[in-house]
Amino acid sequence: ADPAAVAEARAHQDRLTKPQGALGVLEDVAVRLAGAAGVSPPPLPAPAALAIFAADHGVHARGVTPWPQEVTLQMVGNFLAGGAVANAFAAQVGASVTVVDVGVAADLDPAPGLIVSKVAHGTADLSRGPAMTREQAVAALEAGIAVARDLVAQGARCLVSGDMGIANTTASAALICAFTGRDAAVVTGRGTGVDDETLTRKVEVVREALRVNGLERGPDEAPPVPALETLAAVGGLEHAAIAGFVLGGAALRVPVILDGVIAGAAALAAVALAPDAVDHCVAGHRSAEPGHAIALEHLGLRPLIELGMRLGEGTGGLLAHPLVCAAARVMHEVATFDSAGVTDKTA
Amino acid sequence: ADPAAVAEARAHQDRLTKPQGALGVLEDVAVRLAGAAGVSPPPLPAPAALAIFAADHGVHARGVTPWPQEVTLQMVGNFLAGGAVANAFAAQVGASVTVVDVGVAADLDPAPGLIVSKVAHGTADLSRGPAMTREQAVAALEAGIAVARDLVAQGARCLVSGDMGIANTTASAALICAFTGRDAAVVTGRGTGVDDETLTRKVEVVREALRVNGLERGPDEAPPVPALETLAAVGGLEHAAIAGFVLGGAALRVPVILDGVIAGAAALAAVALAPDAVDHCVAGHRSAEPGHAIALEHLGLRPLIELGMRLGEGTGGLLAHPLVCAAARVMHEVATFDSAGVTDKTA
Repeated sequence: ADPAAVAEARAHQDRLTKPQGALGVLEDVAVRLAGAAGVSPPPLPAPAALAIFAADHGVHARGVTPWPQEVTLQMVGNFLAGGAVANAFAAQVGASVTVVDVGVAADLDPAPGLIVSKVAHGTADLSRGPAMTREQAVAALEAGIAVARDLVAQGARCLVSGDMGIANTTASAALICAFTGRDAAVVTGRGTGVDDETLTRKVEVVREALRVNGLERGPDEAPPVPALETLAAVGGLEHAAIAGFVLGGAALRVPVILDGVIAGAAALAAVALAPDAVDHCVAGHRSAEPGHAIALEHLGLRPLIELGMRLGEGTGGLLAHPLVCAAARVMHEVATFDSAGVTDKTA
Repeated sequence: ADPAAVAEARAHQDRLTKPQGALGVLEDVAVRLAGAAGVSPPPLPAPAALAIFAADHGVHARGVTPWPQEVTLQMVGNFLAGGAVANAFAAQVGASVTVVDVGVAADLDPAPGLIVSKVAHGTADLSRGPAMTREQAVAALEAGIAVARDLVAQGARCLVSGDMGIANTTASAALICAFTGRDAAVVTGRGTGVDDETLTRKVEVVREALRVNGLERGPDEAPPVPALETLAAVGGLEHAAIAGFVLGGAALRVPVILDGVIAGAAALAAVALAPDAVDHCVAGHRSAEPGHAIALEHLGLRPLIELGMRLGEGTGGLLAHPLVCAAARVMHEVATFDSAGVTDKTA
């Protein structure tokens, strides 16, 4: 972050016609946006563009979810038809919706709003060995970077990460364990709603993934494997693409609003690859998935919305967009005590 | 709330292409909107209209705030000039802004966007006796009802409560104590930022107000004084007007998004007068003021945003508006599993 822009933003906040600190977390958001952009006031982060990265997972075969794998493909169809919650929320906040196939198991027909950057027809089973080759992970990262670049070139001034991939909370849990050293039992959650028996199996699958791929560690131990190899070992193609999307946004100094646990896991990978990228990330919300809070804590990000959502698709990130805009807008539009002729409080 | 509309809304939520419950609190918001409106899906709560009720307080003379009383008048000028945070947030969410003088100490010149419904030039000191006469409280309630009616007649489909009144967190604390029976020490907070000495004085002033006006009670005791007289005794003119605004919105079946502690205190009065009014209230946010959480708990309302804000003006209510719209929009626009051809999870 640019220290001069941070200092200028903080000082400007304190001149505005409101008690100091009265906007709480939104004041920090505005200051972070200024630091990331290198200018105060920071650019208004609008319009927003949502990219939903879709991919399938070999670990689905282990019975970690009650949802059939073909739901990934079906939901891609739903996004393209405008019928998903992400579409409704995008309409609410004025965001565009782009769906990116980085690894759906089936082949997709071309359609408006769909980018096909398929790296593979799903990953391999992360509990038996690496989910991706190094080359696949790099290709998915590059696909995400390219989407960020293209959306910004088309006018987006804020990027929102979205995901679709049945079984992807399992890969997310494995990534979060690998990048934070926390235990699978505290990181792994019920995703879109699994029963106790499935949850127990899911935790065991995450443990196997970490063991098989040489990723076991404690929270105070250094990661045994470099970040890119870790991402390849237990990530999904959409995780790698979202990590690239974050890096692409950061390189262009455009804020990236992270959605839920999938984005949190992907951001851990992005930040392990390029630590400064975190300055450009905004945590849209905190989902009901326990690993998400752990990922955000590790990233040092404070979520803006906490409504117990656990849908993915970018829905939590979209809802945060008006809040991020409001934080920036204050810096442009609100009068100072001097300019408005308002008396400041007595010291 | 209409039980048929509630049941229909709940059933519709469960048919939509998302895991059941995956939208967390927003599913409850949508169901409440349906119940309040008596129809599912509920009407989209847009556009929104913010009404900022401004008034002064006799208790200011007790030194409960470091802000001079004339800041109420100056901030009204700032709202009318478009320079306050509430203006920036209203622009962000597409809400109109109306300022209502129900009791500013000074006389205001006519201006676009200003409604003068002045009941008195500020209240009397609530720590020495009743802040308002019964007639003044009724007049302010009626002013709030009229504003709700007029804004809805002009097309508003969601009302957002705002307030401006230096020292009004003191009156809010007294109202919350009176309506909940909780102790002044846990209810009273630092408002826009008072030091320890002033906070101690503020708590003592609230205690005096309750004693002088015969409002002392425990949490398990019935209120010793009827709701209207309680409101008159320790409320502000803006509290009475906001209570009327809530009643007016409820009567017209238009949702009212409550802002912070001032709105919370006013809603306690409104709901004491007409219990069903709570069905039409949405808690926009939870402010940093401790009494606000107590008021919301008493009302049974779950705040949508918790960002440590403590500004008032309607700022927290405005930020919640896109979330309330998103909750309703899902009910109109999202496909069902059947219509989208998406496979539901295995039971």
